[in-house]
Formats: sequence, structure tokens, C-alpha cells
Amino acid sequence: MVLNSNNRVDHFECLETTIRIQNTHMPLQIHSVLLPPHQTTLQKLKHRISEIFFPDDPFFRFKNQTWFRKLLLGIQFFFPVFQWAPQYNLCFLRSDIVSGLTIASLAIPQGISYAKLANLPPIIGLYSSFVPPLIYSLLGSSRHIGVGPVSIASLVMGSMLSESVSYSQDPILYLKLALTATFFAGVFQASLGILRLGFIIDFLSKATLLGFMAGAAIIVSLQQLKGMLGIAHFTNQMQIVPVLTSVFKQRSEWSWQTIALGLSFLTFMLTTRYISLKKPKLFWVSAAAPLTSVILSTLLVFCLRKKAQEIAIIGHLPKGINPPSSGMLYFNGPYLALAIKTGIVTGILSLTEGIAVGRTFATLYNYQVDGNKEMMAIGLMNMAGSCSSCYVTTGSFSRSAVNVNAGAKTIVSNIIMASAVLVTLLFLMPLFYYTPNVVLAAIIVSAVIGLIDFQAAYKLWKVDKIDFLACLCSFCGVVFISVPLGLGIAVGISIFKILLHVSRPNTVVLGNIPETEIYHNLNQYKEASRIPSFFILAVESPIYFANSTYLQERILRWVREEEERVKANKESTLKYLILDMTAVTAIDTSGIDTLGELKDMLEKRSIQLVLANPVGNVMEKLHKSKVLESFEEKGLYLTVAEAVAAISIP
Amino acid sequence: MVLNSNNRVDHFECLETTIRIQNTHMPLQIHSVLLPPHQTTLQKLKHRISEIFFPDDPFFRFKNQTWFRKLLLGIQFFFPVFQWAPQYNLCFLRSDIVSGLTIASLAIPQGISYAKLANLPPIIGLYSSFVPPLIYSLLGSSRHIGVGPVSIASLVMGSMLSESVSYSQDPILYLKLALTATFFAGVFQASLGILRLGFIIDFLSKATLLGFMAGAAIIVSLQQLKGMLGIAHFTNQMQIVPVLTSVFKQRSEWSWQTIALGLSFLTFMLTTRYISLKKPKLFWVSAAAPLTSVILSTLLVFCLRKKAQEIAIIGHLPKGINPPSSGMLYFNGPYLALAIKTGIVTGILSLTEGIAVGRTFATLYNYQVDGNKEMMAIGLMNMAGSCSSCYVTTGSFSRSAVNVNAGAKTIVSNIIMASAVLVTLLFLMPLFYYTPNVVLAAIIVSAVIGLIDFQAAYKLWKVDKIDFLACLCSFCGVVFISVPLGLGIAVGISIFKILLHVSRPNTVVLGNIPETEIYHNLNQYKEASRIPSFFILAVESPIYFANSTYLQERILRWVREEEERVKANKESTLKYLILDMTAVTAIDTSGIDTLGELKDMLEKRSIQLVLANPVGNVMEKLHKSKVLESFEEKGLYLTVAEAVAAISIP
Repeated sequence: MVLNSNNRVDHFECLETTIRIQNTHMPLQIHSVLLPPHQTTLQKLKHRISEIFFPDDPFFRFKNQTWFRKLLLGIQFFFPVFQWAPQYNLCFLRSDIVSGLTIASLAIPQGISYAKLANLPPIIGLYSSFVPPLIYSLLGSSRHIGVGPVSIASLVMGSMLSESVSYSQDPILYLKLALTATFFAGVFQASLGILRLGFIIDFLSKATLLGFMAGAAIIVSLQQLKGMLGIAHFTNQMQIVPVLTSVFKQRSEWSWQTIALGLSFLTFMLTTRYISLKKPKLFWVSAAAPLTSVILSTLLVFCLRKKAQEIAIIGHLPKGINPPSSGMLYFNGPYLALAIKTGIVTGILSLTEGIAVGRTFATLYNYQVDGNKEMMAIGLMNMAGSCSSCYVTTGSFSRSAVNVNAGAKTIVSNIIMASAVLVTLLFLMPLFYYTPNVVLAAIIVSAVIGLIDFQAAYKLWKVDKIDFLACLCSFCGVVFISVPLGLGIAVGISIFKILLHVSRPNTVVLGNIPETEIYHNLNQYKEASRIPSFFILAVESPIYFANSTYLQERILRWVREEEERVKANKESTLKYLILDMTAVTAIDTSGIDTLGELKDMLEKRSIQLVLANPVGNVMEKLHKSKVLESFEEKGLYLTVAEAVAAISIP
Repeated sequence: MVLNSNNRVDHFECLETTIRIQNTHMPLQIHSVLLPPHQTTLQKLKHRISEIFFPDDPFFRFKNQTWFRKLLLGIQFFFPVFQWAPQYNLCFLRSDIVSGLTIASLAIPQGISYAKLANLPPIIGLYSSFVPPLIYSLLGSSRHIGVGPVSIASLVMGSMLSESVSYSQDPILYLKLALTATFFAGVFQASLGILRLGFIIDFLSKATLLGFMAGAAIIVSLQQLKGMLGIAHFTNQMQIVPVLTSVFKQRSEWSWQTIALGLSFLTFMLTTRYISLKKPKLFWVSAAAPLTSVILSTLLVFCLRKKAQEIAIIGHLPKGINPPSSGMLYFNGPYLALAIKTGIVTGILSLTEGIAVGRTFATLYNYQVDGNKEMMAIGLMNMAGSCSSCYVTTGSFSRSAVNVNAGAKTIVSNIIMASAVLVTLLFLMPLFYYTPNVVLAAIIVSAVIGLIDFQAAYKLWKVDKIDFLACLCSFCGVVFISVPLGLGIAVGISIFKILLHVSRPNTVVLGNIPETEIYHNLNQYKEASRIPSFFILAVESPIYFANSTYLQERILRWVREEEERVKANKESTLKYLILDMTAVTAIDTSGIDTLGELKDMLEKRSIQLVLANPVGNVMEKLHKSKVLESFEEKGLYLTVAEAVAAISIP
């Protein structure tokens, strides 16, 4: 009894019959299953596309507005700064200045350290903390992000580039490639945003990222052994084994002064970190720690400069703001592919961190960040950065956290930070001459250790074993194979998980909960009872080419087992198989064929196949493929209850 | 109100309260949502694995049997021949002999032709129609399959090997590689069966296969232009463009006699095919056509052997049965990788055809073939084949169809066919000396043309546009790029389709169907009505890392739009968002976090999030992750109706 919603009403009355189900005590009407209202292919396509690319309906503000208002909104849309600027006031400014200076004190040493992590000259790290924040503050829609270089992206860039080009041998080429990678990272990020393909980064599940981050943290820390031990000749491989071997091979080069200095400052920073974790009020303790250590260590080394020669120091850093570097971009030559690849990988990673940070604090302060706009902002920021001697930057977890704790109200705090960095660049560079590399290493280690999150991993293990497995695999991939491959493994597992779930869906036996029209999982609801001569199955997934064969086999097995059970218990023989299609949210041609075949095979065993509650698009496809017709005669009902009722009418 | 099914009963009574929903007129009890009975991780793992690898519970026959019976069943399990052999009788034999001879008459010319399609000596095709059918008849569980070489696999093997090795230049190496590829195809197929990874071939959806087959058919037919036009120097590329160019470049080599001969026999065979399609009773007309044409053309060329020199003929074929070839397998050297790759691709393709054929006729005659056992059978058959000068074979569509039409009762018909081939090999080979290549080309063309199925493609277009797109892409991939790449594209699209569906699930607004407890899609059921101050959404997919962000955005947009609608119509403001979780068949940690965040964000807008009918494993995970606790207070109900009722108690 299929009818199109147009000629529904008249049919409807005639179908309504009031009867009683054998084991529930409420009157029940039989309703016909309707087809969804007809749509042209074009309408469907339009709807589908808007669902795929514009789920958040970004332009809803523009609807029915005057052209002037539209223009204004447009400007605000592309430059969120104009949204909050009007309401900006002095008290905002005060807190922004405080937080701005706080993150600056963190940003300067971090910048220098992370640049070294990417095998880049330290000054690049400072440059990267100056231009990008300014650009983000114009374009970004998050109010609490702290922009700058981040450890993971720095590490990955360093590792991927060092595989083919060594900084020590050809610094210029290496720098060129780093800037070009940054440019492509920006292009990639911006285009993801413009093409609204943001969902691509969703395929890095939190679980796999957790493992990836932890693995990266370990790799990074191992790399720091070079600085911590003061080893001059160090492997440029990344994996745990070669690094450790080279560490112990070079035991002769270990410098005890360096080790002592490093360990003491590391303990200092870890303690401050611990304090801030215990007392969030004292966040500034850990925020200020890196700068303090830099100052102290620099002074120390300055005083001991005669005695402690072998403590490696940063040395001369050029004064002045970012030199333009658009001329250094490398667009043809043997390494272009490498630059693009590095750009895309670092782009994805930094984007993931940036978006996550933005979303986290947006949820915390109850405003929404538009993922795609964020991508454009971060992308443009990196493109501009690549033209002003900056490498990949994004919203950094550590900075943003400090920023928020320091009471940042708007993105202005980033402008303040940038200005502080500017002052440093213009006047304070010589002060870093005696800063020992070991303290930078210590800063990195203390920063990345925070990325290893045992609680989260334990929670994964408790809640979802497969997620835990994914996490573990990406961890091992990073630690034992290589960083990009680890990432690849992470994504691969995530996708494999989906495919497995799709190709092996659940089928659940339903029973009636006494005195109700509710049919539920017999296994979950012990009071639910089977109904004689009926067998009710719920298929818990779309029926696809990927699972249609499996479902057919599985359902036939259910039927076989049910028949055996019935025979064993001498119950009335099986006459009807009701498939509850509520969770079958889609079907394709293979699925439709499977349903048809199933119906035939069951009929040969004199069992009738009945469909309960197929959703709109499934109905439509069954109708178009003419399979529906074979179900019209007592084969199609709105709910399981109605099916049972209607069929068991004497 | 969560409680574990153990301490259920006592709670249950106290929870049952009888009240009325504002807009339905039936008493209603509120039931608590239960957790599924507790299982240890090991139990879950065991269950999951059995669901993944043993959906059909292959060993159910062995349950509680005597050891002797078990042994017997075991033998029958591995050698299905022992299942039907006892019941075998004379009348079976009669029909098997008829059908066996019929397919033999088809198999002999087909074998020779397909071998040429794979650039192999024609005799290999006959060898391949002798040993493999015998082995399959011992191990195979299908009763109607006709075993032998198939066009697609032959084509793919030919194209993949020819890319690196040319038969004309190094026939021995080429033959070695072909046999080795066959061996690896067998190993791959068998291991898929043993490891019960059969579902891998399910990822070739029918839609994409349709396109692939059609494309391959065109490529094959184009290849035959060499034979049909009698061109001696022909490109060994496969794509449409180079083939056509080389055809017209070599216009000088066209031999009009060849063309005339070819066209006449092609028309003959196409006509017979048409007749058999119109009148299935006359199937034997098309079945006998190839042999007839071979005989006729051979006689013709024999008579004209003086005048028609330039009609290329097969020439001398060695007498005698399959020589052993295990010595020719090629296990080390530069081409090993190629052999393995070719083996896997041809293995998958032949497997797909074989399994499909088996399933089709099993459904037709209402018995079941065990996919994984079939894979083992086909795999072993190919491994054995590779040691007896056979190349890749499987259950062939054309032969099986003829076999069934000719009234085959059991797999014995294959044994008959094999014996007929044996006789040919021993005594009749000289007769093929004058057989012209052109007639073989004609046989191939008339065979593969059947693979182009316009009706099916049109049906795809009508029923499922995305399936049609997938079909089209794999078609173009094969025709314009390359056969293996076309296959890759086909699989890629199929997987992309799944991922897209998973990452952009539907969300549907539900309304109450008056006078019932049924809540349904407002868009599909016009009489369904919204309930004041409630907003009811059904999420039609598992909530995964891949779609959690999307769902959050989408749901928040739904809420925003609903609030606007309510304001516009001056209805009572929105207080509750009910999520119908029936179709949310799984959730992972990202999904759980999303639910939590969503709850918080909605509460900030003073809207309460309510979950209706979460399924077992979702309940479990929500419980383990402690998120459930936040829903216990009026946030969790068994059905939407109960949620609405319970919440709207005054």
C-alpha cells in the first residue's frame, strides 16, 4: 500500500482500520507508508550539495537585508575585526595588554626553540611570532587563540626536509624549501577553507591524533638529547633506534656542564608546570618560566663565559624586523615536490591544531568559530608569512591556554604580543648572544611533555577499544617508522575502522515490550518477548554494496537458527520475517537487489518478508526500482507494531 | 534513569506511571532505558570476531555430533563432491553429459581465443579448460558453474604483462610470468578464503563492475581489430586512442579477405546470440555457433589455402595433455613484483566473476554457496593450474549460463567437458592447423559484446545517480587511462562514496502522527505535526570522528532555524531538543564528546537536550564515559513518545 503524499488523504481514511494486537491492549490504526514528496534530480542535487558544503548555512545573516547592510555584513564576514571593534573598550584593552605581554614572554623563547626544532635559524621563530599574529587578528574569528609556531608542525617540517636536504650543508636551499613549504601549507589551508572541504581534517580522529602527538613528543624530546647533552655530531634521523645509538656512540662528546645546566632548568620548568597544573590561578608561574630560564641561563653563561667554553650558545642574531622573502620561494627544481608534500602535511597538522584550539575556547566561552573561515584565515596568514621570512604558524595550544588564563578578551592580545616581539627584534636581539642552546632544548622538552596524555589514553581504553588501538598504532608508527608515515597510518586506521563498521553492520533481534507497541532489542530488554510465528530483525546500517552480501548471509543464518529454535521448543512455525528498516538510512542498487533476492529465497522456504518503516530515500529507491511493488501486498508497514497487528488480523 | 538489567525489575515497577500525552489519547507508561547485559572485553572481542569472520557460522553442522560424524562432515565440508555423489543417479548423468558436451563445444574455441587475448599460445587456453574444471569439481560447492578462462582476466593479464614484457620478443619469459601470475592469483584467492577476508571483493560494487566490464569489453573488441583486419604490426598499448591511430596508420596492411571472413562470421554469431536471447529455448544455437564457425572457417581456409595466403592461421599446435610447468614458475628476478601484481589483480577480477556466477545460480536453484569455500576452491584450482600449463581460470558467466540452459544437474558436466577437451588435446589438434585467427577474433568480440549492459546502466541512472556516476567513472578509467587504473578508480569511488555518506549524514525533523505514539519525518508525512516547545531530530547515522563536527554544526543550525521559525509564528519558545538515537548504531569517543559539548551549548541557550532510544552499545559507551550521568535527570527515554509524555507531565 504505497501512495504518493499528494493523493494521500483520500486513501488514508479508507486504510484506517481499528483492531487489536494479540498481546497489547491498545487500539491501533494501520497507516500507509508514504513516499517523500517528489523532487527533481536538480533539486536533490542542490539539496545534497548544500548539505555537503554548507551545513552551517554561512550566509544566513545576509538573507533579506538591504544592499548596504549586506555590504557591511560582507566586510564583517571577511574581517571579523569589524564585528567586535565597535564594542571594544578600555577595560578590554587592559586585560588584553596583560595577556598579550604574558604570551609574549612565552612566545619569544618558544619561537627561538621551535625554529631550532625545524632546523631553522632561531631568528625565523621570532619573525614567525610577529607577522602572522597581526594578520590573524584581522581575519580570524576566534577571540582567544594565541598564534605562533607550534612544536608538531616544526618537528614534521624539520624531519621531512632534513631527509633530503641538510641545513648544515646548504642552509640557503633549506631555508628556501621551508618558506616554500610554508607557502604551500598556506595555499592548501586556504583552499580547504574556500572550497569548504574542511571535513577532510575530520578524518584525523581525536584518538589517532592523541597517539600521534604522544609519539611526536617522544621523538622531539629525543632530538633534544643533542642539545641537552651538548653533542656536536648527531644523526639527522628521527626514529628512536638510530637516535639512541648515536647518543651512546657519541658518549665522548657529552659535556657535563651542559647536562647539569639543562637538567636543572628542565626540573625548574617541569616544577612550575606542575604547580600551574595543580593551581590554575598560578598559570603565570609556568608561563613566565621559559623567559626566566632564558634570562638566568644567559646571565650564568655570560658570567662563566671564560670557564664554560663548551656550552653551545645561540651566538649572533641579526637585528631588525622580518626581511621580505617572497624572492626566496622555490617554484621549480628537483625539490618542488618535496616542498609541496611537506607543505601539505604540515598544513594539515597545523590546521588540525588551530581549528581544535579555536573550537575548544569557542565552546568554553559560548561563541561559534566558522571552521572554513578559520582555515582561510590561517591559510592567508601562512601565505603572507612565507613572504616575510616566517615558517608555518597556527593557533598554538600552549599559548592560547596561557592567553585565556591571563584573561584575554579579544584577539588584540595577539597584537600586543606582536608589538612586544617587534621591540625584541628591534632592540633586544644582542641580549640573546650568550643564551645556551641547552636551555632551548629544555624549553622544548618541558613543552612537548604536555602532549603525552595518559588519562585520555586510559579513557580511550576504557570506553572504546578500537579507538585505543588506532591511538596505539599511530603512536608506534611515529616512534618506530617515521613521522609522516605515522600520520598516514593514523588516517588509514581511521578509514579502515569506518569501512569495517560499514561492511559488518549489526543485526538485532527485536521483541515486544509487554503492554506497549514498543519493539526492542531482546538482548538489551529482558522483558521484551518474541511473537509466535514472527521473527523481527533490525538492520542497523545502510544496505550498501559493501555489506549487502554479508547482510544476506547473516539474515539467512538468523532465520535458520530461529527455525531450529522454534522446532526445538515446539513453537508455532515461522511465517513472517519483519525487517525493521528504521536504521537503514540509505540503500544502493546492490542493496535493493539483495532485498529482492532475500524475499525470493525466503518465499521458497514459505516465509514472507515484511518491511517496517523504510525511511524516505529508501522508499523512493525501492519504488523507482519496482522492488516495492512486490512488497505492496501485506509487505510494507509504518511500524513493527502495525505490521504485527495488521498481519495477525484473523 | 539508567539501571543495569540485573536490578531492573524492582526499579521498573516504581518507574511506571500512567499519564496522558497532550495530543494522543492512549495511556502510556514510562520505561527506563537499560544497559545491555555486562560482557567482558574478551567476550565482546570474541563476538565481534565471529561476526566479522564467521557471519555464516560455517561449522554449525558440526555442533554436538559424534567424532565419526564430525569426520564425515569434515570430508564433505572440504570435498563437497561427497555431499552429492551418494545421491547421484543415471538421469543426472544423462543431462550432465548433454550439458557437458554443449559447454565443451563452446569451451574449445573460447579457450583458444581467450589465450590469444592474453597474448598466450592458443594451446594454453585448451590446457586451462582441462585441469582446472577437474579440480573444481572436487572442491567447488556450486553445482552449475562452468569453469574455464574468462575474457576480463585474460585481457587484464595480457595488458599488464605486455606493458613490460613482449611475447613476440621473449615468449618463454612471458609464459613464465603468466604462469607465475596465475600461481599468485591462486595463492591470493585461496588465502582470502582461508583468512575469510572474502568481504574484500565486496568493495567492487556491482555498479562499478558494470562500468569496468563495459570498458573492458570495448578495449577487448578494439584489440580484436588486429585479427579482424589482419594487421601484422599492431601497437601493444590498450587505450582507445593509440589503438585506433595504429589501426589507421597500418591501413596498408588491411587484408580484405580477412575482413570479409571476419565480418561474415561475426554477423553469424551475433545473429545466433540474438536468437538465443529472444528464445531462451534455443540457447544451443548461440552455444554451438563458435564451434560451427571454427569448423566452417577452417574448411573454407583449407580449400582456399592456395589463393588466400594472407589470411593468418593458427598453424601447428602440439598434441598431448598439459605438460607439467611447476619448473617454469618465476620466484626471483626483476619481474617478480610484476607477476605478483598481475596475479593479485587478475585474482580479484576472476574471483569476483566466479563468486558472482556461483551466487547467481545458487539463488536461482535455492541452495547456498559458501563464498569463502568457493574462494579456496578457485584458488587451489589456479595454483594447481599454474603447475600444469594453465593460466587464470574461474567460473565463467557465458559457460555457466549455457551449462544451466543445457540442463546441467551437477558439477559432473564440468568433468564431461574436461574429457571432451582431453580427447581434443590427444587427437584433434591437427584439425586446428588451418583455423584462421580472424574467426577467433570474431568469437571474442561476439562474446564480450554481451558484457555491455545498457539496460542495467539506465536502471542505475534511474535509481541511484551516484552509482551511475561510479559506473561511468570506472568505464572512462578503463577506456581512456588503463585497465588496472580503471579498476583502481572503481574501488576508489566506491570507498569515497561510503566516506562521503558517513561524513555527511542526514538529520531529519520528526513530528507526531496524530492519535498515535508514532513520530515521523515531517517532510515525508504531511499529517505529522510538531509539538509546542519541543524540537525532535533524528540523527540517521553513527556518530563518529568523521561526522561529529558536522553533526554539531548542523544540529545547532537546526535549533537556530527552529528558534527563528518559532519567533516568526509566535509559538511557545523552544525548551527541549529530543534526539532520536534509533539510527545512531554506534558512537566513538569523538561522538561522545560532541554529545557532551552539544548539551552544554544548548543549556547555555536554556534548551535541554534529551536522548530517545539509544541502542545497546551506545548506552554502554555513554555510561562508561560518564556522559550518561548528565542525562539521567529527565534526559533519557526509551521512545520519543515517552520522552514527550514524561517531560510534559504538569
